[in-house]
Amino acid sequence: MQPVQRCVIIGGAEIRRYQRIRESLRKDDWLVYCDGGLKHIPEIGREPNLIVGDFDSHEKPETDIETIVLPREKDDTDTVYAVKEAVRRGYREFLLVGVTGERFDHTFGNISLLLYLDSLDIPARILDDYSEMSVVSRVPAEVEDSCSYFSLLNISGTAKGISIRNAKYPLTDGEITSEYQYGISNEVLPGRTAQVYVREGRLLLVKVI
Amino acid sequence: MQPVQRCVIIGGAEIRRYQRIRESLRKDDWLVYCDGGLKHIPEIGREPNLIVGDFDSHEKPETDIETIVLPREKDDTDTVYAVKEAVRRGYREFLLVGVTGERFDHTFGNISLLLYLDSLDIPARILDDYSEMSVVSRVPAEVEDSCSYFSLLNISGTAKGISIRNAKYPLTDGEITSEYQYGISNEVLPGRTAQVYVREGRLLLVKVI
Repeated sequence: MQPVQRCVIIGGAEIRRYQRIRESLRKDDWLVYCDGGLKHIPEIGREPNLIVGDFDSHEKPETDIETIVLPREKDDTDTVYAVKEAVRRGYREFLLVGVTGERFDHTFGNISLLLYLDSLDIPARILDDYSEMSVVSRVPAEVEDSCSYFSLLNISGTAKGISIRNAKYPLTDGEITSEYQYGISNEVLPGRTAQVYVREGRLLLVKVI
Repeated sequence: MQPVQRCVIIGGAEIRRYQRIRESLRKDDWLVYCDGGLKHIPEIGREPNLIVGDFDSHEKPETDIETIVLPREKDDTDTVYAVKEAVRRGYREFLLVGVTGERFDHTFGNISLLLYLDSLDIPARILDDYSEMSVVSRVPAEVEDSCSYFSLLNISGTAKGISIRNAKYPLTDGEITSEYQYGISNEVLPGRTAQVYVREGRLLLVKVI
């Protein structure tokens, strides 16, 4: 039987707005702290269900909690390993926090995990201090007017047949290329819910808070 | 006749290591400050040659320096406009600073400018507090062993026939997909210079300082 809980992955990037993370957590979330992410335990206020890391950025804790110690030389980062492990264990919904900021290569590698999970039909979101990110593909996305802005980015090469409704800058059957990202800082019309459709390819939806 | 100087675009993102920026500047660089980027003038220590902005994040300065005032409602961000304007004026080499960090949508939109400039055969780099970024495409790239790490990211969909030489994790005719970014945190072999080749598509090269 598959777990019905959501898996929350906590990475080691800086978090300033802990309140938002705490409010986003569900009581029955299954929490994986990755290496440097362990420093967030006091502010997040929830113990790990699993710890994963090569412990190059945080000391390996003395604990009875299940801990997977990874080698330092490996293809996958701790966060990528943690996501794959949770998928192996049957988790079918993900929230990732503490995975963006500072080094862009790590940030983008972690955002690419949204594409990986999308390819497995697994819904996933990243929450950081500025935004909530998810992938728009086969399933149309909705954006509430509580967002100050929303952006659509081509991060995977193909994004065609894009339609945006109920937004300040609407679009019908448009294309956004990797070279020309004109889908930044759109706004939902007041009192409405914007809809985003992609016919071919995928987009990163960034809801700015 | 085309200008032979390099164009430096200064955006409004946070900069902590100004010393690196100052050391990277050439005496004859042509400097464009974009809106919020104006706050960096004292630490960068160089006056603008051009100011561009809709002035939603910085007051429009009282100055004789050429200033392009953009409307707030537009497809392009101030930074994108500035790059296009400099291309129109004939600049054929770019350095972008203060363009990454905080909001990911702005960060990635600006990194996409490297793809745009590459498509025009214009060499361009982004410098931030953690790394130097550039696009690898038709021309092989070299990575000095002074870098602590280097990463290769697929940000545009296609990156095939990748070869990496003189690195801890070498690769021959490999592929990196948008979904599985295993090219993070490679290392140059001590005393050597790594080489990166891409036969089909493009990669973002991130040299971590």
